[in-house]
Amino acid sequence: MDDNGDVAVDFGEDGLVPAVAQDAETGEVLMLAYVSPEALERTRETGRAHYYSRSRDELWEKGATSGHVQDVREVRVDCDADTLLYLVDQEGGACHTGHRSCFYRTIDGETVGEAVFDPDAVYTDGGTVDETTDGDESGETTTESE
Amino acid sequence: MDDNGDVAVDFGEDGLVPAVAQDAETGEVLMLAYVSPEALERTRETGRAHYYSRSRDELWEKGATSGHVQDVREVRVDCDADTLLYLVDQEGGACHTGHRSCFYRTIDGETVGEAVFDPDAVYTDGGTVDETTDGDESGETTTESE
Repeated sequence: MDDNGDVAVDFGEDGLVPAVAQDAETGEVLMLAYVSPEALERTRETGRAHYYSRSRDELWEKGATSGHVQDVREVRVDCDADTLLYLVDQEGGACHTGHRSCFYRTIDGETVGEAVFDPDAVYTDGGTVDETTDGDESGETTTESE
Repeated sequence: MDDNGDVAVDFGEDGLVPAVAQDAETGEVLMLAYVSPEALERTRETGRAHYYSRSRDELWEKGATSGHVQDVREVRVDCDADTLLYLVDQEGGACHTGHRSCFYRTIDGETVGEAVFDPDAVYTDGGTVDETTDGDESGETTTESE
Protein backbone atom coordinates (compact mmCIF):
# COMPACT_ATOMS: atom_id res chain seq x y z
CA MET A 1 0.00 0.00 0.00
CA ASP A 2 3.04 2.23 0.27
CA ASP A 3 2.82 2.91 -3.42
CA ASN A 4 -0.38 4.82 -2.70
CA GLY A 5 1.20 6.89 0.02
CA ASP A 6 -0.69 4.88 2.61
CA VAL A 7 0.71 4.05 6.00
CA ALA A 8 2.19 0.52 5.94
CA VAL A 9 0.35 -1.37 8.67
CA ASP A 10 2.48 -3.73 10.78
CA PHE A 11 0.36 -6.87 10.96
CA GLY A 12 2.94 -8.65 13.10
CA GLU A 13 3.64 -12.34 13.44
CA ASP A 14 0.01 -13.48 13.47
CA GLY A 15 -0.97 -11.26 10.55
CA LEU A 16 -3.60 -9.41 12.57
CA VAL A 17 -3.93 -6.03 14.26
CA PRO A 18 -6.50 -4.90 16.81
CA ALA A 19 -9.04 -2.41 15.50
CA VAL A 20 -11.06 -0.13 17.75
CA ALA A 21 -14.46 0.86 16.38
CA GLN A 22 -15.61 4.30 17.55
CA ASP A 23 -18.92 6.02 16.85
CA ALA A 24 -17.97 8.87 14.50
CA GLU A 25 -20.80 11.04 15.84
CA THR A 26 -20.77 10.49 19.59
CA GLY A 27 -17.19 9.30 20.12
CA GLU A 28 -18.43 6.23 21.98
CA VAL A 29 -16.01 3.31 21.79
CA LEU A 30 -18.16 0.49 20.43
CA MET A 31 -15.96 -2.61 20.21
CA LEU A 32 -12.54 -4.04 19.56
CA ALA A 33 -11.91 -6.79 17.05
CA TYR A 34 -9.04 -8.01 14.88
CA VAL A 35 -8.22 -7.16 11.30
CA SER A 36 -6.23 -9.03 8.65
CA PRO A 37 -4.77 -7.39 5.54
CA GLU A 38 -7.73 -8.72 3.56
CA ALA A 39 -10.23 -7.42 6.15
CA LEU A 40 -8.66 -3.99 5.94
CA GLU A 41 -8.70 -4.08 2.16
CA ARG A 42 -12.36 -5.09 2.12
CA THR A 43 -13.19 -2.36 4.64
CA ARG A 44 -11.56 0.29 2.49
CA GLU A 45 -13.07 -1.04 -0.73
CA THR A 46 -16.62 -1.35 0.57
CA GLY A 47 -16.79 1.33 3.26
CA ARG A 48 -18.22 -1.35 5.58
CA ALA A 49 -16.28 -2.56 8.62
CA HIS A 50 -14.73 -6.00 8.08
CA TYR A 51 -12.81 -7.98 10.68
CA TYR A 52 -11.10 -11.35 10.95
CA SER A 53 -12.38 -14.14 13.18
CA ARG A 54 -9.46 -15.91 14.79
CA SER A 55 -11.68 -18.72 16.04
CA ARG A 56 -13.37 -19.38 12.70
CA ASP A 57 -10.28 -18.37 10.76
CA GLU A 58 -12.31 -16.30 8.36
CA LEU A 59 -13.10 -12.80 7.24
CA TRP A 60 -16.40 -11.39 8.48
CA GLU A 61 -18.37 -8.26 7.80
CA LYS A 62 -19.82 -6.65 10.90
CA GLY A 63 -23.62 -6.84 10.74
CA ALA A 64 -23.66 -8.94 7.57
CA THR A 65 -26.88 -10.66 8.59
CA SER A 66 -27.89 -8.83 11.78
CA GLY A 67 -28.09 -5.62 9.81
CA HIS A 68 -26.03 -3.87 12.48
CA VAL A 69 -23.44 -2.77 9.99
CA GLN A 70 -20.72 -0.20 10.46
CA ASP A 71 -20.26 2.39 7.73
CA VAL A 72 -16.64 3.45 8.00
CA ARG A 73 -16.04 7.16 7.63
CA GLU A 74 -12.32 7.01 8.26
CA VAL A 75 -9.59 4.53 9.15
CA ARG A 76 -6.82 5.80 11.38
CA VAL A 77 -3.58 4.07 12.33
CA ASP A 78 -1.53 4.59 15.46
CA CYS A 79 2.03 5.88 15.65
CA ASP A 80 3.73 2.54 15.24
CA ALA A 81 1.12 1.31 12.78
CA ASP A 82 0.06 -1.79 14.68
CA THR A 83 -3.42 -0.70 15.79
CA LEU A 84 -6.33 0.67 13.76
CA LEU A 85 -9.18 3.01 14.65
CA TYR A 86 -12.36 2.74 12.63
CA LEU A 87 -14.55 5.84 12.83
CA VAL A 88 -17.97 4.45 12.04
CA ASP A 89 -21.67 5.08 11.74
CA GLN A 90 -23.08 2.13 13.70
CA GLU A 91 -26.45 0.76 12.68
CA GLY A 92 -28.37 -0.52 15.71
CA GLY A 93 -25.95 -1.81 18.33
CA ALA A 94 -22.41 -3.11 18.13
CA CYS A 95 -22.79 -5.69 20.88
CA HIS A 96 -24.48 -9.09 20.63
CA THR A 97 -25.92 -8.47 24.12
CA GLY A 98 -28.16 -5.77 22.67
CA HIS A 99 -26.10 -2.87 23.95
CA ARG A 100 -24.92 -0.04 21.78
CA SER A 101 -21.33 -0.69 22.87
CA CYS A 102 -19.55 -3.87 23.96
CA PHE A 103 -18.09 -1.77 26.80
CA TYR A 104 -21.41 -1.52 28.63
CA ARG A 105 -20.05 -2.56 32.04
CA THR A 106 -17.60 -1.11 34.50
CA ILE A 107 -15.07 -3.56 35.87
CA ASP A 108 -17.04 -3.31 39.12
CA GLY A 109 -19.90 -5.02 37.30
CA GLU A 110 -22.13 -1.97 36.99
CA THR A 111 -24.03 -1.71 33.72
CA VAL A 112 -23.55 1.77 32.33
CA GLY A 113 -24.20 1.21 28.63
CA GLU A 114 -27.39 1.67 26.68
CA ALA A 115 -29.40 -1.38 25.55
CA VAL A 116 -30.73 -0.71 22.06
CA PHE A 117 -32.11 -4.01 20.77
CA ASP A 118 -33.35 -7.44 21.81
CA PRO A 119 -30.64 -9.93 20.86
CA ASP A 120 -33.11 -12.82 20.79
CA ALA A 121 -35.06 -10.98 18.12
CA VAL A 122 -31.96 -10.27 16.07
CA TYR A 123 -29.97 -13.47 16.36
CA THR A 124 -32.10 -16.35 15.23
CA ASP A 125 -29.86 -18.82 17.03
CA GLY A 126 -30.45 -16.92 20.23
CA GLY A 127 -27.35 -14.87 19.92
CA THR A 128 -25.03 -17.70 20.73
CA VAL A 129 -21.55 -16.44 20.09
CA ASP A 130 -18.17 -17.95 19.77
CA GLU A 131 -16.52 -17.36 23.14
CA THR A 132 -13.07 -16.81 21.77
CA THR A 133 -11.35 -13.48 22.01
CA ASP A 134 -11.58 -12.52 18.39
CA GLY A 135 -14.23 -9.92 18.34
CA ASP A 136 -17.12 -12.28 17.76
CA GLU A 137 -18.56 -10.80 20.92
CA SER A 138 -19.37 -7.79 18.85
CA GLY A 139 -22.41 -9.58 17.56
CA GLU A 140 -21.50 -11.89 14.73
CA THR A 141 -22.67 -15.42 15.31
CA THR A 142 -21.20 -18.36 13.50
CA THR A 143 -24.09 -18.38 11.09
CA GLU A 144 -24.14 -14.63 10.73
CA SER A 145 -20.69 -14.20 9.35
CA GLU A 146 -21.03 -16.94 6.75
CA MET B 1 -11.75 -10.32 41.92
CA ASP B 2 -15.06 -12.13 41.71
CA ASP B 3 -15.33 -12.00 45.47
CA ASN B 4 -15.73 -8.25 45.13
CA GLY B 5 -18.45 -8.55 42.52
CA ASP B 6 -16.02 -7.44 39.86
CA VAL B 7 -16.09 -8.71 36.30
CA ALA B 8 -13.54 -11.54 35.92
CA VAL B 9 -11.22 -10.41 33.13
CA ASP B 10 -10.13 -13.11 30.67
CA PHE B 11 -6.39 -12.51 30.30
CA GLY B 12 -6.05 -15.37 27.84
CA GLU B 13 -3.05 -17.53 27.09
CA ASP B 14 -0.47 -14.74 27.17
CA GLY B 15 -1.87 -13.20 30.36
CA LEU B 16 -2.53 -9.85 28.70
CA VAL B 17 -5.54 -7.97 27.38
CA PRO B 18 -5.61 -4.91 25.13
CA ALA B 19 -6.68 -1.71 26.84
CA VAL B 20 -8.01 1.30 24.96
CA ALA B 21 -7.35 4.65 26.63
CA GLN B 22 -10.02 7.24 25.88
CA ASP B 23 -10.12 10.88 26.97
CA ALA B 24 -12.94 11.01 29.51
CA GLU B 25 -13.77 14.61 28.57
CA THR B 26 -13.51 14.72 24.81
CA GLY B 27 -14.01 11.05 23.94
CA GLU B 28 -10.84 11.05 21.85
CA VAL B 29 -9.23 7.61 21.60
CA LEU B 30 -5.69 8.22 22.81
CA MET B 31 -3.83 4.92 22.58
CA LEU B 32 -3.97 1.15 22.86
CA ALA B 33 -1.61 -0.83 25.06
CA TYR B 34 -1.60 -4.14 26.89
CA VAL B 35 -2.49 -4.87 30.48
CA SER B 36 -1.49 -7.71 32.80
CA PRO B 37 -3.40 -8.65 35.96
CA GLU B 38 -0.79 -6.74 37.98
CA ALA B 39 -1.05 -3.68 35.70
CA LEU B 40 -4.82 -3.67 36.15
CA GLU B 41 -4.48 -4.06 39.90
CA ARG B 42 -1.99 -1.18 40.08
CA THR B 43 -4.25 0.97 37.90
CA ARG B 44 -7.20 0.41 40.19
CA GLU B 45 -5.14 0.89 43.33
CA THR B 46 -3.43 4.09 42.25
CA GLY B 47 -5.94 5.64 39.87
CA ARG B 48 -3.07 6.02 37.38
CA ALA B 49 -3.00 4.05 34.12
CA HIS B 50 -0.54 1.16 34.21
CA TYR B 51 0.26 -1.15 31.31
CA TYR B 52 2.55 -4.08 30.60
CA SER B 53 5.48 -3.88 28.20
CA ARG B 54 5.73 -7.10 26.23
CA SER B 55 9.16 -6.17 24.87
CA ARG B 56 10.67 -5.26 28.21
CA ASP B 57 8.55 -7.80 30.04
CA GLU B 58 7.68 -5.34 32.77
CA LEU B 59 4.94 -3.26 34.27
CA TRP B 60 5.00 0.42 33.38
CA GLU B 61 3.09 3.46 34.50
CA LYS B 62 2.07 5.77 31.67
CA GLY B 63 3.88 9.08 32.07
CA ALA B 64 5.99 7.92 35.00
CA THR B 65 8.84 10.24 34.04
CA SER B 66 7.43 12.22 31.11
CA GLY B 67 4.74 13.54 33.39
CA HIS B 68 2.13 12.67 30.78
CA VAL B 69 0.17 10.55 33.21
CA GLN B 70 -3.33 9.24 32.79
CA ASP B 71 -5.69 9.65 35.75
CA VAL B 72 -8.22 6.87 35.36
CA ARG B 73 -11.80 7.86 36.05
CA GLU B 74 -13.30 4.50 35.18
CA VAL B 75 -12.30 1.09 33.88
CA ARG B 76 -14.77 -0.66 31.61
CA VAL B 77 -14.66 -4.20 30.29
CA ASP B 78 -16.20 -5.52 27.11
CA CYS B 79 -18.90 -8.17 26.81
CA ASP B 80 -16.58 -11.15 26.78
CA ALA B 81 -14.22 -9.55 29.27
CA ASP B 82 -11.10 -9.72 27.13
CA THR B 83 -10.64 -6.02 26.37
CA LEU B 84 -10.51 -3.04 28.70
CA LEU B 85 -11.44 0.61 28.24
CA TYR B 86 -9.70 3.18 30.42
CA LEU B 87 -11.57 6.48 30.67
CA VAL B 88 -8.81 8.90 31.54
CA ASP B 89 -7.77 12.47 32.12
CA GLN B 90 -4.64 12.67 29.97
CA GLU B 91 -1.89 15.04 31.07
CA GLY B 92 -0.11 16.52 28.05
CA GLY B 93 -0.15 14.05 25.18
CA ALA B 94 -0.49 10.29 25.01
CA CYS B 95 1.85 9.82 22.05
CA HIS B 96 5.64 9.89 22.07
CA THR B 97 5.50 11.78 18.76
CA GLY B 98 4.11 14.79 20.61
CA HIS B 99 0.54 14.30 19.49
CA ARG B 100 -2.39 14.22 21.85
CA SER B 101 -3.42 10.81 20.49
CA CYS B 102 -1.38 7.99 18.96
CA PHE B 103 -4.08 7.84 16.25
CA TYR B 104 -3.00 11.12 14.68
CA ARG B 105 -2.86 9.79 11.10
CA THR B 106 -5.38 8.44 8.66
CA ILE B 107 -4.34 5.27 6.88
CA ASP B 108 -3.92 7.47 3.81
CA GLY B 109 -1.04 9.14 5.61
CA GLU B 110 -2.80 12.41 6.38
CA THR B 111 -2.01 13.91 9.79
CA VAL B 112 -5.28 14.82 11.47
CA GLY B 113 -4.26 14.79 15.13
CA GLU B 114 -3.17 17.68 17.31
CA ALA B 115 0.51 18.07 18.24
CA VAL B 116 0.69 19.19 21.87
CA PHE B 117 4.33 18.91 22.91
CA ASP B 118 7.88 18.68 21.60
CA PRO B 119 9.05 15.11 22.13
CA ASP B 120 12.71 16.11 22.07
CA ALA B 121 12.05 18.39 25.01
CA VAL B 122 10.20 15.71 26.94
CA TYR B 123 12.23 12.60 26.23
CA THR B 124 15.79 13.23 27.20
CA ASP B 125 16.97 10.38 25.02
CA GLY B 126 15.28 12.02 22.06
CA GLY B 127 12.15 10.03 22.37
CA THR B 128 13.65 6.81 21.18
CA VAL B 129 11.07 4.14 21.72
CA ASP B 130 11.02 0.43 21.67
CA GLU B 131 9.59 -0.45 18.28
CA THR B 132 7.68 -3.47 19.45
CA THR B 133 3.94 -3.60 19.44
CA ASP B 134 3.38 -3.37 23.14
CA GLY B 135 2.20 0.13 23.65
CA ASP B 136 5.61 1.65 24.19
CA GLU B 137 4.74 3.93 21.32
CA SER B 138 2.47 5.71 23.71
CA GLY B 139 5.42 7.59 25.01
CA GLU B 140 7.29 5.47 27.50
CA THR B 141 10.96 5.14 26.67
CA THR B 142 13.06 2.33 28.02
CA THR B 143 14.51 4.61 30.64
CA GLU B 144 11.17 6.20 31.40
CA SER B 145 9.37 3.13 32.51
CA GLU B 146 12.06 1.93 34.87
